[in-house]
Amino acid sequence: MAGNHANDDPLRFGVVLFPGFQALDVFGPLDCINVLSRTDSHRVSLSLLSSTLGPVTTKPPRFPAAIGQSIVPTHTFATAPPLDVLLVPGGWGSRGSSPVVQEVIAFIKATYPQLKFLITVCTGSGLAARAGVLDGKRATTNKMAWREMTALRPEVVWVPRARWVTDGNIWTSSGVSAGIDVALAWIEEVFGKQTAKKIADWMEYTRHEDPDLDPFAALHGL
Amino acid sequence: MAGNHANDDPLRFGVVLFPGFQALDVFGPLDCINVLSRTDSHRVSLSLLSSTLGPVTTKPPRFPAAIGQSIVPTHTFATAPPLDVLLVPGGWGSRGSSPVVQEVIAFIKATYPQLKFLITVCTGSGLAARAGVLDGKRATTNKMAWREMTALRPEVVWVPRARWVTDGNIWTSSGVSAGIDVALAWIEEVFGKQTAKKIADWMEYTRHEDPDLDPFAALHGL
Repeated sequence: MAGNHANDDPLRFGVVLFPGFQALDVFGPLDCINVLSRTDSHRVSLSLLSSTLGPVTTKPPRFPAAIGQSIVPTHTFATAPPLDVLLVPGGWGSRGSSPVVQEVIAFIKATYPQLKFLITVCTGSGLAARAGVLDGKRATTNKMAWREMTALRPEVVWVPRARWVTDGNIWTSSGVSAGIDVALAWIEEVFGKQTAKKIADWMEYTRHEDPDLDPFAALHGL
Repeated sequence: MAGNHANDDPLRFGVVLFPGFQALDVFGPLDCINVLSRTDSHRVSLSLLSSTLGPVTTKPPRFPAAIGQSIVPTHTFATAPPLDVLLVPGGWGSRGSSPVVQEVIAFIKATYPQLKFLITVCTGSGLAARAGVLDGKRATTNKMAWREMTALRPEVVWVPRARWVTDGNIWTSSGVSAGIDVALAWIEEVFGKQTAKKIADWMEYTRHEDPDLDPFAALHGL
């Protein structure tokens, strides 16, 4: 299978960032896209979006003694270019209703109609749910945060046992490391099986290829 | 097993950064440490080290059309605080002898004697090897880059078939995603099996717990 994305179309990728995003939620999928962008001449652009252009820390405010890393955005939500794909990470910072969380939710809501794909990782699906774009759709989320996330929006058809779920152009994944698997599954769908295999092999990553296999659902009694 | 690190000792963690570092080499292990720093009151400090305090991109210079992300260092090599653990990532940027690569190698060489642990991911072991600190030690590296890396320093006892290798206080891992496994194995050694399991479960990560299981060695004829 060659995939359904022509090699000469640049794919405009965006990622929303907010204080307390989970690092691997972003860098698991993004490193797959990084490698893709160096592979087979696939042309990709990337926008890292936040409220301001100031570096965004992974450190959650609720853990004052925790460590964090700061990432530099390329655009604000107000100056975001047109996008084909939006990646929404989760993390402690995805909770609550701080101004930046409200901006993220408003951005997802405003941007979704133009997207070819929306991909969420972990509690990022809670942000997409609150934006209303998952209403009536099948979706999954972090299994430890299951009850908290699913309560945010009962209009979503929440799927408790899944590494990831696709419904139309929306790909939602389970917690943290599941982002790598949903990214590679999405790359397989869009760029073909051989490209996904090449990237996984390059990253020495043994993929979870069955979207329904989810040992963490059982761990949390789901 | 409770692990051999007392909960009230802060662990001083450092990571070297250089243009073209592989994002997951850093953020796979670091996200495990991020979670550790929010778990069971384990106190950890983190220094992100580079030549200057300017953001460091993951984009390798040799791929002008590739995408990248920029991370903000906290210290320069010249202003680095005392460290207990140093993480050395790999990536395309670990090759060659640019000034920053020479600085990284000199920093590893100068810092190793004070460290409790040195951890390398992917071609980061090539940097440690060039610093001379792997001489006479068993070590592994990225399997696709095997011949290039091992030729850098024949004094190292290179182990071709390993997810990761420990020798004394040096933990070297295979390519990219293997960094997550070596980080969790190291956490198990230092903080105990239950802490490592809690972090892996929190990240919904199914660990590779056998250091000798390495399908990527075979893939590359090693």
